[in-house]
Amino acid sequence: MSNSAVYLDHNATTALDLRVLDAMLPFLQHPQGNPTSRHSFGRHARQAVENARAQVADTVGAHPTQVVFTSGGTEADNLAIQGVAAAQAPTSIAVSTIEHPAVYRPAQYLMGRGWKIARIQVDENGRIALDSLNEVLQQKTALVSVMAANNETGVLQDIPAIAEICRRHGALLHTDAVQALGKIALDFNALGANAMSLSAHKIHGPQGAGALVLDKRVDIRPLLYGGGQEKGLRSGTENIAAIVGFGLACELAQRELNDRIATIENLRNRLETGLRRLGATIFGGESARLPNTSFFAFPNIEGETLVVAMDKKGFAIASGSACSSDSTEPSHVLLAMGVDPEFARGAVRVSLGADNTAQQIDGFLLALENELLRLKRMAALAV
Amino acid sequence: MSNSAVYLDHNATTALDLRVLDAMLPFLQHPQGNPTSRHSFGRHARQAVENARAQVADTVGAHPTQVVFTSGGTEADNLAIQGVAAAQAPTSIAVSTIEHPAVYRPAQYLMGRGWKIARIQVDENGRIALDSLNEVLQQKTALVSVMAANNETGVLQDIPAIAEICRRHGALLHTDAVQALGKIALDFNALGANAMSLSAHKIHGPQGAGALVLDKRVDIRPLLYGGGQEKGLRSGTENIAAIVGFGLACELAQRELNDRIATIENLRNRLETGLRRLGATIFGGESARLPNTSFFAFPNIEGETLVVAMDKKGFAIASGSACSSDSTEPSHVLLAMGVDPEFARGAVRVSLGADNTAQQIDGFLLALENELLRLKRMAALAV
Repeated sequence: MSNSAVYLDHNATTALDLRVLDAMLPFLQHPQGNPTSRHSFGRHARQAVENARAQVADTVGAHPTQVVFTSGGTEADNLAIQGVAAAQAPTSIAVSTIEHPAVYRPAQYLMGRGWKIARIQVDENGRIALDSLNEVLQQKTALVSVMAANNETGVLQDIPAIAEICRRHGALLHTDAVQALGKIALDFNALGANAMSLSAHKIHGPQGAGALVLDKRVDIRPLLYGGGQEKGLRSGTENIAAIVGFGLACELAQRELNDRIATIENLRNRLETGLRRLGATIFGGESARLPNTSFFAFPNIEGETLVVAMDKKGFAIASGSACSSDSTEPSHVLLAMGVDPEFARGAVRVSLGADNTAQQIDGFLLALENELLRLKRMAALAV
Repeated sequence: MSNSAVYLDHNATTALDLRVLDAMLPFLQHPQGNPTSRHSFGRHARQAVENARAQVADTVGAHPTQVVFTSGGTEADNLAIQGVAAAQAPTSIAVSTIEHPAVYRPAQYLMGRGWKIARIQVDENGRIALDSLNEVLQQKTALVSVMAANNETGVLQDIPAIAEICRRHGALLHTDAVQALGKIALDFNALGANAMSLSAHKIHGPQGAGALVLDKRVDIRPLLYGGGQEKGLRSGTENIAAIVGFGLACELAQRELNDRIATIENLRNRLETGLRRLGATIFGGESARLPNTSFFAFPNIEGETLVVAMDKKGFAIASGSACSSDSTEPSHVLLAMGVDPEFARGAVRVSLGADNTAQQIDGFLLALENELLRLKRMAALAV
């Protein structure tokens, strides 16, 4: 890793905020108890976990008792999908065609367990087609899962409208808000979802902590059985330092949200002005999006090629979803939006953070322009 | 938490080794990539994970490809039990009567999924009764789970002998080695188990990391579906810093094992000499045990009472298993060993670490003696 490299892949993971690290350090430097233990060490650890729970809850307008800590977003998604399914006889689960693998793969797994999996379509702008949702919900559906913001395009969904439709059909709604947290305001009650997944490491918190925010009326079974932590919903010794860090990362994200949005949106607009000038198509560009995400392609240029070339020039960007280990296929999100598969292979993602600067954006655009020229020259020579 | 308190509860959790923290800090202080990402940040993170995998594997005599990182011991146990069960049609799973809840609760859960759960008995010394194992294995059994060392008594099991019996009956063997790691030498191949659970925070590593060491012939399904990390067996962004810490904690535990054992065994003998002088019964005292664990009781004295009283005097000890949230019942481990339930309620556990000192042991014994006298005086007054 070159320390001078510019990190433009914040939807994959983010640097730990040093204020968050400072809050975590006492829990790493000094002996800690197991929060289940009844001695002073244990009580101290328990208190730290409960304080963090309140911080997370407060950030998303939930009650602390609604927050179930997990090891991360993937576990939160799996707990929602598999946990709701385990609590009842198989009917149908509906997931949108643009979900993260942490949602659609547990749903696929349930197909082998007697569940029907229905797919909710999106339009060409990456927005859930509400008529497709209504149609899907004609069959008895236990759970609908629609992400609040897409990790690749950044496109936002109208979760309150989707929740209203789900309620009308008696289906529970889970929303993967891993990418939305810290980038837009999130209010669990206002969204109207019954369950919501969060992750710490996408908001400058540590890896190893996430949460499922859960409407207490939801009948759900644990994924991990054991000591009965998290009121029996997630056994295993709590990762105290990571949970403490998650709590503060949430609090900071909430307190600084408007400033961060303003900074990042400015950078993103600067970036996209440049990208459009270079001839890029920006996917979901017509939709309301996260302020930090640009997913784009140039004709006849492979996304993978561009990622590798830009990495050599010192810019870390992504092609398709960095959370997936198989990226030889074009993005399923773009295919769902009706993008031509060949063009979709060109897609690269820049996802910004408040730690990026205008200078970095300009440097990126210049390097990209040079690289595009080089690739075009090479293509011309190859003809 | 009083910083001057003496921590004698190392089987619940341990303080992070400051050398381990030092190794983790670069991964917390500097921007890290997602190991799945293809840019320089991602490759750097991937390399750190693979280095730690080799350290863990080397410590337990396994091959790096046999190590599946999890969020901790509970997840490793659940992955072994639920994962093997998910890969085949229900038959029987056999667990010993002294397993940790992270083993017996997932087994109980499977009872609702068509599996039969058989219980393997232990003798009065807390050792697996091999005739009970043989008897249980008369019925077709997919998986046997027997812990390498018990978390409460510290009693060791003869895993190679158990593995041989399992092999003869065509059953897979999983062993929860969470308490054994770092306290005795562990060799995955020599043990002969097909799967083995490990945890970082019990060996002065960080919370949030563990592993399932897995014989590659085992047919197993993931618990967490998503991005396909850990060769598809454990999806979710890797907790890089925790995994790095786990790797070094293993390496240190291996390198310093003999010294640690010598130190701790001396302290434990000093402790038990004192305890016996005060009239304690030491559970499993006739068996080969971990060098650090003493589980004991005095007649007519509640374990809970003693834990609270000793906590006030500045000594952190445990009653029953600190990993369980319901400790109103007497220890299931002692009941399985045939201990009278009333006497079992008196059980308290001291679990030592290499950071404890002879002075602390003497201080503990003195404080305990005073407390026992006080409790006996109170009991005499109450009559």
